[in-house]
Amino acid sequence: MSAIYQTRLTKLRAKMRETETDLVAVGPTSHLAWLTGLDPHGDERPVLLLISQEHAEFLMPALNADSVRQHTDIPFTTWADANGPHAALDEILSRIPLPENPRVALDEMMRSDFSFLLLGKLPGAQHVFQHGAIGALRKIKDASEHAALKATHQVNDIALTAAFDGLREGMTERDVADVIAATYASHGARVEFINVAFGPNGAFPHHHTGDTRLTREMAVQIDCGCRHMGYPADNTRCGWFGTPSVEYTKIFDIVERAVAAALATAQPGVTSGAVDAAARDVIIDAGYGDTFVSRTGHGLGLDLHEKPDIVSGSDVVLEAGNVFSIEPGIYLLDQFGIRLEEIVILRDDGPEVYSDLPRDMFVRG
Amino acid sequence: MSAIYQTRLTKLRAKMRETETDLVAVGPTSHLAWLTGLDPHGDERPVLLLISQEHAEFLMPALNADSVRQHTDIPFTTWADANGPHAALDEILSRIPLPENPRVALDEMMRSDFSFLLLGKLPGAQHVFQHGAIGALRKIKDASEHAALKATHQVNDIALTAAFDGLREGMTERDVADVIAATYASHGARVEFINVAFGPNGAFPHHHTGDTRLTREMAVQIDCGCRHMGYPADNTRCGWFGTPSVEYTKIFDIVERAVAAALATAQPGVTSGAVDAAARDVIIDAGYGDTFVSRTGHGLGLDLHEKPDIVSGSDVVLEAGNVFSIEPGIYLLDQFGIRLEEIVILRDDGPEVYSDLPRDMFVRG
Repeated sequence: MSAIYQTRLTKLRAKMRETETDLVAVGPTSHLAWLTGLDPHGDERPVLLLISQEHAEFLMPALNADSVRQHTDIPFTTWADANGPHAALDEILSRIPLPENPRVALDEMMRSDFSFLLLGKLPGAQHVFQHGAIGALRKIKDASEHAALKATHQVNDIALTAAFDGLREGMTERDVADVIAATYASHGARVEFINVAFGPNGAFPHHHTGDTRLTREMAVQIDCGCRHMGYPADNTRCGWFGTPSVEYTKIFDIVERAVAAALATAQPGVTSGAVDAAARDVIIDAGYGDTFVSRTGHGLGLDLHEKPDIVSGSDVVLEAGNVFSIEPGIYLLDQFGIRLEEIVILRDDGPEVYSDLPRDMFVRG
Repeated sequence: MSAIYQTRLTKLRAKMRETETDLVAVGPTSHLAWLTGLDPHGDERPVLLLISQEHAEFLMPALNADSVRQHTDIPFTTWADANGPHAALDEILSRIPLPENPRVALDEMMRSDFSFLLLGKLPGAQHVFQHGAIGALRKIKDASEHAALKATHQVNDIALTAAFDGLREGMTERDVADVIAATYASHGARVEFINVAFGPNGAFPHHHTGDTRLTREMAVQIDCGCRHMGYPADNTRCGWFGTPSVEYTKIFDIVERAVAAALATAQPGVTSGAVDAAARDVIIDAGYGDTFVSRTGHGLGLDLHEKPDIVSGSDVVLEAGNVFSIEPGIYLLDQFGIRLEEIVILRDDGPEVYSDLPRDMFVRG
């Protein structure tokens, strides 16, 4: 096992002692990728990594054993399709002494049937999720993660610029997405997600890129991210094709002030709720509070969405090393939506923004 | 709701009565897509469709409500990021009268925390998965699914042919995958998965396409599938770059005979285990039983892997309308692997193969 994964496992065991967690169970999700660097083929066949203070072992489908074997020295017990996973899992558990009513941290992202398979073997177990175990560790990014996050956002900046510069009358949202995807590919990155919304489509925070065509005097909202060096990027920029209306310019200014307020508030020791409130208050004061239906931000790491969320009322205290989005928005049904989004890493003296792209309105056409 | 989804919901309620299931809970997985045609943005925010005999309602993140609203008339109760899902879920459950210890069919594919969120509200519930509910219905494909499966396999045939015809000395496995991906794109399909294995890499059933380069006298194994009209394709073909060795030709013949034996055995009323045995016995008789580490096949539909599996010892009885793979293989470590794979739909008089591509050895170079 390489040094980085050895360090993470050591940290996990310290966290398990601190939270009196007897067993950590991880499926083929980003928790496993973070802990071991492995990305085993994920299908309906149960894959579990079980970790106690003394022991770590994989329940592994026989079919995958040889190819995963090349990438880790954690022991496996394999199971063949014809036998199913029960006997193999019993065998592993027989090697892990557990107290009467063990506290088991399940991988909240793994398929439900994987969780129930394990709990079925541990009557009396008290189950929790990874928030106090791997989740807590993942919230603090290390130097290698920071470097990957910077690199992936640099590619994303290039793609967003290409997308706005490439806007032409008559293009569909999908055409713009193709420009972004091609830019990612030419930089060796792959698509994590691309949402292009023209005009009123921007009023749906989770609009799906479609066949709407760009006409003059239309709002353009692009929210996209590549995955590069294993990590996703995530930025939203907005603009206007033609000459921006007075209304659009006014709303744009409010959203920009909301972003600036959240960035000015985010410091280690401040709560997530306070950062949300900083952005939200700007929008409420401007009279658009009802239209800002989402949280202000989400954590980001190996997963596009992870902890800590930046959400109203949250008393989660932000720490140096947290990475999260600041993305307030105003969504005006049948008109347009404006969201401006930065991903930041929290430093001792405040947030460092990953994107080098200005948040200015992109006026084209 | 369009007629096809209305029919599926009616069938589901009949199946629930038959299996005495009080509540079906579906997450944002392929079960939901099959039942409603919806594909709501899946992230960490709980999305649940709850179905009883009298009622059907979505627990829906407020953020997604508007965009999903356009595609269904099933009612929603929404929850905002600031409030979390608990109150909304309580509200929905208050509208669904349930017996003392309800039998609840959970979506086995959904995130574990979605399942526990619901079960936490239903003390005394007996939980099962969808095998006796949506899973049972999905095993029998209807005419629209058959048409989509035929179409997607026709694109896959073209891509596999292009891949073998394009083999040139010095190409990497990734280069071949690029040929396949480009062919998919030019036919409006997208990549479901592509595994290209040169030489000894083919001995790993779940090898990841990599940087290995093609040299003369090398085995080539390609297992790939596009997704087209919503459905995945899945076929494996094998061949040799140069002049095939006597050993390779011998093994190829054994695997082809195993496929033929399974195809000849598969009939409605026959068990899955009998079809597996037909293929497996050919390989065992030839002396290679130890190397055939996988099941003979898996079901396929909206998911690349679904029920029914074709697996040793299974007493699941195959029915007309089942769609599954037949994919025996012989894997010789440090040498090569040969797997030949067809997807079939079981008709009253036996299997109909989706691919029109011969299973002959692809000899190129």
